[in-house]
Amino acid sequence: MDAISRLLKPRSVAVIGASADVKKTAGRPVSYLLKHGFKGAIYPVNPRVESIAGLRCHPDVASLPEVPDVGIVLLGAERAHLAVRELAARGAAAAIVLASGYTETGEEGARRQKQLLEAAGKMRLLGPNTIGLVNLTDDIVLSASGALEMAHFPAGAVGVVSQSGGILGALLSRAAARGIGLSKLVSTSNEADLDLSDFIDHLADDEATKVIALYVESVRNPDTFRAAALKAARAGKPIVAFKIGRSEAGAKAAVSHTGALAGADRMYDALFRQVGIIRAQTFADLLDIPAALATGRVLRGNRVAVLTSTGGAGTLVSDNLGVSGFETPPPDEETAARLRALQSGDHAALDRNPIDVTLAGLQPDLLRGAIQALLDSPGYDALCIIVGSSGLAMPELMAGAIQDCMHTSDKPVLAYVSPHAPEVAALLTQRGVPAFMAPESCAAALGGMRQAARWRAPSMQPGLQAQASTAELPVGSLDEAQAKQLFARFGVPGVREAVVKTAAEAERAARELGEGVVLKILSNEITHKSDVGGVAVNLKPEEVGTRLEAMTVEVRSNTGIAPDRFLVQEMIKGGTELILGFHRDALGSAILLGMGGIAAELFNDTTMRLLPPAGGLSRTEALELARELKSWPLLDGFRGRPKADVDALASAIVAFSEMAAQLGSRLVEAEINPLFVLPEGQGVRAADGVVVLGQ
Amino acid sequence: MDAISRLLKPRSVAVIGASADVKKTAGRPVSYLLKHGFKGAIYPVNPRVESIAGLRCHPDVASLPEVPDVGIVLLGAERAHLAVRELAARGAAAAIVLASGYTETGEEGARRQKQLLEAAGKMRLLGPNTIGLVNLTDDIVLSASGALEMAHFPAGAVGVVSQSGGILGALLSRAAARGIGLSKLVSTSNEADLDLSDFIDHLADDEATKVIALYVESVRNPDTFRAAALKAARAGKPIVAFKIGRSEAGAKAAVSHTGALAGADRMYDALFRQVGIIRAQTFADLLDIPAALATGRVLRGNRVAVLTSTGGAGTLVSDNLGVSGFETPPPDEETAARLRALQSGDHAALDRNPIDVTLAGLQPDLLRGAIQALLDSPGYDALCIIVGSSGLAMPELMAGAIQDCMHTSDKPVLAYVSPHAPEVAALLTQRGVPAFMAPESCAAALGGMRQAARWRAPSMQPGLQAQASTAELPVGSLDEAQAKQLFARFGVPGVREAVVKTAAEAERAARELGEGVVLKILSNEITHKSDVGGVAVNLKPEEVGTRLEAMTVEVRSNTGIAPDRFLVQEMIKGGTELILGFHRDALGSAILLGMGGIAAELFNDTTMRLLPPAGGLSRTEALELARELKSWPLLDGFRGRPKADVDALASAIVAFSEMAAQLGSRLVEAEINPLFVLPEGQGVRAADGVVVLGQ
Repeated sequence: MDAISRLLKPRSVAVIGASADVKKTAGRPVSYLLKHGFKGAIYPVNPRVESIAGLRCHPDVASLPEVPDVGIVLLGAERAHLAVRELAARGAAAAIVLASGYTETGEEGARRQKQLLEAAGKMRLLGPNTIGLVNLTDDIVLSASGALEMAHFPAGAVGVVSQSGGILGALLSRAAARGIGLSKLVSTSNEADLDLSDFIDHLADDEATKVIALYVESVRNPDTFRAAALKAARAGKPIVAFKIGRSEAGAKAAVSHTGALAGADRMYDALFRQVGIIRAQTFADLLDIPAALATGRVLRGNRVAVLTSTGGAGTLVSDNLGVSGFETPPPDEETAARLRALQSGDHAALDRNPIDVTLAGLQPDLLRGAIQALLDSPGYDALCIIVGSSGLAMPELMAGAIQDCMHTSDKPVLAYVSPHAPEVAALLTQRGVPAFMAPESCAAALGGMRQAARWRAPSMQPGLQAQASTAELPVGSLDEAQAKQLFARFGVPGVREAVVKTAAEAERAARELGEGVVLKILSNEITHKSDVGGVAVNLKPEEVGTRLEAMTVEVRSNTGIAPDRFLVQEMIKGGTELILGFHRDALGSAILLGMGGIAAELFNDTTMRLLPPAGGLSRTEALELARELKSWPLLDGFRGRPKADVDALASAIVAFSEMAAQLGSRLVEAEINPLFVLPEGQGVRAADGVVVLGQ
Repeated sequence: MDAISRLLKPRSVAVIGASADVKKTAGRPVSYLLKHGFKGAIYPVNPRVESIAGLRCHPDVASLPEVPDVGIVLLGAERAHLAVRELAARGAAAAIVLASGYTETGEEGARRQKQLLEAAGKMRLLGPNTIGLVNLTDDIVLSASGALEMAHFPAGAVGVVSQSGGILGALLSRAAARGIGLSKLVSTSNEADLDLSDFIDHLADDEATKVIALYVESVRNPDTFRAAALKAARAGKPIVAFKIGRSEAGAKAAVSHTGALAGADRMYDALFRQVGIIRAQTFADLLDIPAALATGRVLRGNRVAVLTSTGGAGTLVSDNLGVSGFETPPPDEETAARLRALQSGDHAALDRNPIDVTLAGLQPDLLRGAIQALLDSPGYDALCIIVGSSGLAMPELMAGAIQDCMHTSDKPVLAYVSPHAPEVAALLTQRGVPAFMAPESCAAALGGMRQAARWRAPSMQPGLQAQASTAELPVGSLDEAQAKQLFARFGVPGVREAVVKTAAEAERAARELGEGVVLKILSNEITHKSDVGGVAVNLKPEEVGTRLEAMTVEVRSNTGIAPDRFLVQEMIKGGTELILGFHRDALGSAILLGMGGIAAELFNDTTMRLLPPAGGLSRTEALELARELKSWPLLDGFRGRPKADVDALASAIVAFSEMAAQLGSRLVEAEINPLFVLPEGQGVRAADGVVVLGQ
């Protein structure tokens, strides 16, 4: 067994600094181990106590009768490293350090954490500042969480990894109250050694775990995280993540616009999307979606039947499903006939959707008949059953009727409980019908199932396709012409243009480019050209020379720098303006595609993909990026517009991403803004660009 | 006492069709009246039964010993009208009809409902198809809702009106479990007579009610609804509404674009906003926001202190507050010093926000001191207290510490309970500290308080300002030139243009308009001019004639109609394009303002106001409309653009709205698209428009 397996399923546990007072945090681990049925050996270690809860207490780790698999260290930050060193010396697989006072408190704490890690040596370390872990599959609790005061936790298929200890306790107690069975829960907290990725990786192999739920504050190692998430995906285990930090402001980049548009939280969105992680939008979703996924049922389409025993709530759930993009069509003819045959009476509303069985009361045969008809119907992909007050009196009846039919179909079946009746919801959930107390949760759970069913692993990266010489590039900002030449080397064509120095050269160039040209200063010092009077558009060739001279005066008076070089460019008409940019933060390097002009910013119309460890984006990913834009219809023939050359756009995105991949850490900023996408067959043109290179 | 007061607080109740079997719906009302402590007279009416629950049963209404204030009619739809007629004949104030089988079932049901209403005569009617009402202020339950099986419901300050009976039961039981006190609950359902507005109006006067919660399926009478909502607002009683039907598609208008952009649900948004109703975004918000408002505390700003006894949850709540636009700044220097003075130790994190008292444990003095310091701080407008597992053991301690400080400040104080502990949340809520189990709910509750504090009643309408002759206008579609002339009469200037018939006239007109003109066909038959080749832009005067002849041929070949009139228009440059439209549906008439071009549709960048019963919009409302656009920055000098003439835009909106008000029901469709807003001081120009008039 590897160290993480031993940590999660130890045969023996030493509790260093254990207290006999169960009211103290240090008294809890031994008490909880016993209470929740640990079958292995427990070794309390405390030189000042004879025994704890009937267990003999040992003065130190050295005197333990055997090497413990795991040591729970309850000492303060000043002494925890000593216990860790002793555990490592004895050959324990792992230590769990609960003390706080490490990196989370500043420099002095960071020093302590380094010391702790050194003390551990080859032994694995969970924490510090962790609340520990809980293995419900095997009745093992290595934790001081107050949530463990509860008597019973249903074991199940959802594995939880949380970067916060308090949240772990909240999820543990909330899942238990909801009847949602969990497999393992781990709080990684400071992640001096073991982190999110280690446990995702482990849970991907864990037989008891079918779904993984993550509470994420910050991914410290994006590469291992990505690898672990893809491993879980390959194992058919969906991951649901709740990530905080959503309200943080975007980064302020110096030259390009991409940084401000990207933002730390949007990088996480991109990362999660790329590795198939379903992002929980509310904290409740972090249990609700896994509860639905844990059934193993697959949502194959978008059409939901709502079966209700209370009119209003059926409509409420239907409305929420509609808001989330689900359809609730009426039953097909055959199904409607089957439903009508279940009862007579002119008030019956069995052939609509919501299918209303309020008046029919809760007759088991009728309920079973309706459920069976809806599960059999080719017109529905899922069934949502609404429990009203009438169902509360007989929850077993309802659960029984559902269970009688469940095995005949593999469609998702969920329940919404309308009155306050958490015990009914828990009962249904435990019987395999995830039940929710919020109408929004039904939609979120089905939404998560839809996302899980639709996700396809990215094709293996082919490595770099486009390669170009970049060795000779200077350090610092390239000027606009150099930037576009670099893009062109990788396959992104620029507008036709000429670098000129004099009015006469400018006029000559303009005449070659044809009617209506753009004149810009060319400088790697001045980045915001328009702001200083350094751009003029739609000029006739005969105007260009005069304009160049006037521009020279204006820019000099605005900046103190006399421009000595200019660009004369063709003016692009009839294309769609996009922005294509590069952004890097702690999470990795990413390609951003956005609507050009003001839309990216005002309407937040941008989308992103992180670059894989080696290579650029695939053509499929490039096309997905384009389709994810809110303004995609503009590229796709919106209201009689010509369709844009999406093929050429995809090629440009791939090329730009490969440029970024090849330049690697040398690339500081890069952006094409605007990138014109012309009508089908006419390609794209980079009209302006920024590149900043480092060492 | 008026009839509604007698309905809600009867001294005597007749229950017609009462059953002795409490398991039947017809057995519940008498049983619930007794169980929940009704102090007046109860008269069961049933010719086949001697007595029910010890009460003498009467054979019919005529033989009752006194005139009952209210009759609860439990007979089926076939016979209910007979009982209603008898009650009316005896002079009862109101009847409550529970039977279904009326308008909700189709034509035959609608006939029955008409018959029922006629039978009631001057007597008021609740229902049919209602679950009845509950008056918790006075321990009176006139309802068959299964939710009343619960033993106890805390009375309080939130009045609930629901158009669904099932939802009423859900809200009743959920509020009780949450410790949220309600005053009255009414299910109006089919609203044959009494509707939402009647009860809003009544609750506005009800002493026990401080906040009103509405579950809305459809507002049947917008005028009385508006009046009742404004009455509640004047009485200082905020209204929170949850409205379903959010997923319905927008109306498809024939000619203008406004209908598709408006949509039934957006009309409700506009109505709610205008009368100060806070729209609940989730079903849970419908209790959460009223629970916060019922404290009577006022949120005066945006800065929230988060005091936590568990680190992770504090960050979680802060993050949610941030997403909802709240600030969680660190304490000011003086407050930080007060907090630091509460304890020593280098791990303390008392001078940050979240203010973390995890390590300090739950010492009452420390907790009280921290709460007091935060309530005293001029740097915070509200306090959110996080309860972790450690607080669960001693909820009284926490509640006590909070209560000790509450009276020293009128800032809102809320709580978030991190582990599963609904009883702790209920205890806190009952003690006057609204407590939530979802982090999103804290943000939603504070968001609702912010909205309530910011809302200002619209100034009284000045009546029509602009008046213009409209008597001579024809029925049907105006052509573009006529439409813009109509807008101009009310004060919205159009672009300079001329109506021409020949190539020669067109050239002459173009020469007068200057360089670059637009040529369009002029027709009230062809509405989508561009689609048939009927628009050409940026023409030189010398090109216009030839283009006119070519256009004639192209349009005729596309439509079979030979255009015989044309418009030559100046081309507007450098303005911002908006759409200004009129839309009418069952809820009323509305003015829509949207970003022009594609943004309105792709980015959903539109906003609306309903017209008041008489007159147009006020200037303040017109300015609000402009500021509500996502693209407002474009009008406000975004990234160095010139500021737009917002003054002139406001005038145009007011003028357009007054045109709509004056035309009243004659106006079928109207839209200016695009409306160019030029830089400050240069005004606006209607460049194209549609008007359709009815009889």
